[in-house]
Amino acid sequence: MTKTIAIQGIQGSFHHIVSLDYYDNTHKVKECLTFDETVASLFNNTAETAIMALENSIAGSILPNYALIDNNDLHIVGEHYLDVQHQLMALPNQTIADIKEVHSHPMALLQCKSFFKDYPHIKLVEDKDTADVARKIEAQQIKGVAAIASTLAAKIFNLDILAESIQTIKHNQTRFAIVKTQPINNHKNEINKASLKFELDHKRGSLATILNVMSDCKLNLTKIQSLPKIETPWKYSFFVDVTFEAYEDFEKAASIMTIMATHFKILGTYKNAKL
Amino acid sequence: MTKTIAIQGIQGSFHHIVSLDYYDNTHKVKECLTFDETVASLFNNTAETAIMALENSIAGSILPNYALIDNNDLHIVGEHYLDVQHQLMALPNQTIADIKEVHSHPMALLQCKSFFKDYPHIKLVEDKDTADVARKIEAQQIKGVAAIASTLAAKIFNLDILAESIQTIKHNQTRFAIVKTQPINNHKNEINKASLKFELDHKRGSLATILNVMSDCKLNLTKIQSLPKIETPWKYSFFVDVTFEAYEDFEKAASIMTIMATHFKILGTYKNAKL
Repeated sequence: MTKTIAIQGIQGSFHHIVSLDYYDNTHKVKECLTFDETVASLFNNTAETAIMALENSIAGSILPNYALIDNNDLHIVGEHYLDVQHQLMALPNQTIADIKEVHSHPMALLQCKSFFKDYPHIKLVEDKDTADVARKIEAQQIKGVAAIASTLAAKIFNLDILAESIQTIKHNQTRFAIVKTQPINNHKNEINKASLKFELDHKRGSLATILNVMSDCKLNLTKIQSLPKIETPWKYSFFVDVTFEAYEDFEKAASIMTIMATHFKILGTYKNAKL
Repeated sequence: MTKTIAIQGIQGSFHHIVSLDYYDNTHKVKECLTFDETVASLFNNTAETAIMALENSIAGSILPNYALIDNNDLHIVGEHYLDVQHQLMALPNQTIADIKEVHSHPMALLQCKSFFKDYPHIKLVEDKDTADVARKIEAQQIKGVAAIASTLAAKIFNLDILAESIQTIKHNQTRFAIVKTQPINNHKNEINKASLKFELDHKRGSLATILNVMSDCKLNLTKIQSLPKIETPWKYSFFVDVTFEAYEDFEKAASIMTIMATHFKILGTYKNAKL
């Protein structure tokens, strides 16, 4: 069904891995430089589906991506979890002693900084995209320079992995959303998770009241994030994820929350991918 | 009382502005390259106080800083809000037409990218620190290069502001914490806000129950952020801020939450700085 999937980054990026894990390798991938471009692809019909990182266990929620989904009224139709592991890679027949520079995205360099304390001869250089450095190293046959990227990038661009999982914090679980401009007709009995957004006045107990409704309707809260609305003091937005066993329970809770909260919105209903 | 305040960045940085706003200009400032170094200053006694950004209205919570405070058992003794405004600045007697390159922190460049669409002749170059670029431009009298930094940085380093508030999103309110290794003896009647951390089992309604306690004890929730604990599935940490009118109400709620939640911890009690 899905023909083209818009991903952030190029082939071999972590978003590309998610597209292969979630769908398969029969679809086409559209490489996008930014998340804005990923979303634009859905509206100019160059992609039917987009994949966007939503949060990770180190940095938390990626609020700009929540805003993109919310402001463009996109629908989350699925989720996927990936344990992001950074590999050090270079052209074959080199050792770490041969490497003079490592180029990667500032965030990847930051996450791997401790590893390089043992290699003071290596200079860290910021670049735009993790996988794109791997691509350039192969395309231009650059020796003495290594990339920090995924195992998939090493495979695609024929690089050797010099050191595995070099990031300081060994588990960096990242959650990705599969998004479309329209909801898909999932079978209700396959849906057991929903992403919601609502606003509440800054009135004592107002969130507790909403959570009581959710609890009474047998919904489990798996994530909650408050967001003050700068323009309207004392108003708060909440992004909430819930899991449930029966879709009817969710429908009941949603109908009550629509009345109790301001601007109640279902960002998506989908199958829980967390084991 | 406070003699040296550790800030992230150099003089003219946004953390420096917060130190001047919160205290005054009679204290010394210790410039730190990283937040880790800021915290280390407290433990090697080179500073009595540290200032750390906690969250901003664009990107949300800065979770690594929450982790630094939590893991080092630091105490939040105050908070301060700053509306971060990015100014474009260069050596005097130049116009934007004279500027060939703009150097700044990747995040500042990202936040101001739209502004430069009208100036395609300007190249954007990543650098470590916003204010440090301003310092270098003055020290080395570099013409044709502009910095993106604070109004304070322009004053300290004698640069002219070529364009004001060039960031795309006009309001970027950032919240900073004033932290120490020990709580200070605030008068209880001056304290009306607290930052808390606790853990809950993934049991339906457990958060609702805690929020009911807070509501019954007349606490207002101003922030809530859930954080899955990667190593222990189905356990969740919560960072919560509450405001209250009577300190006794807070003490009562804290004593109940200590019993109900796992690892209940008060990260700090202080005066609410939000109007």
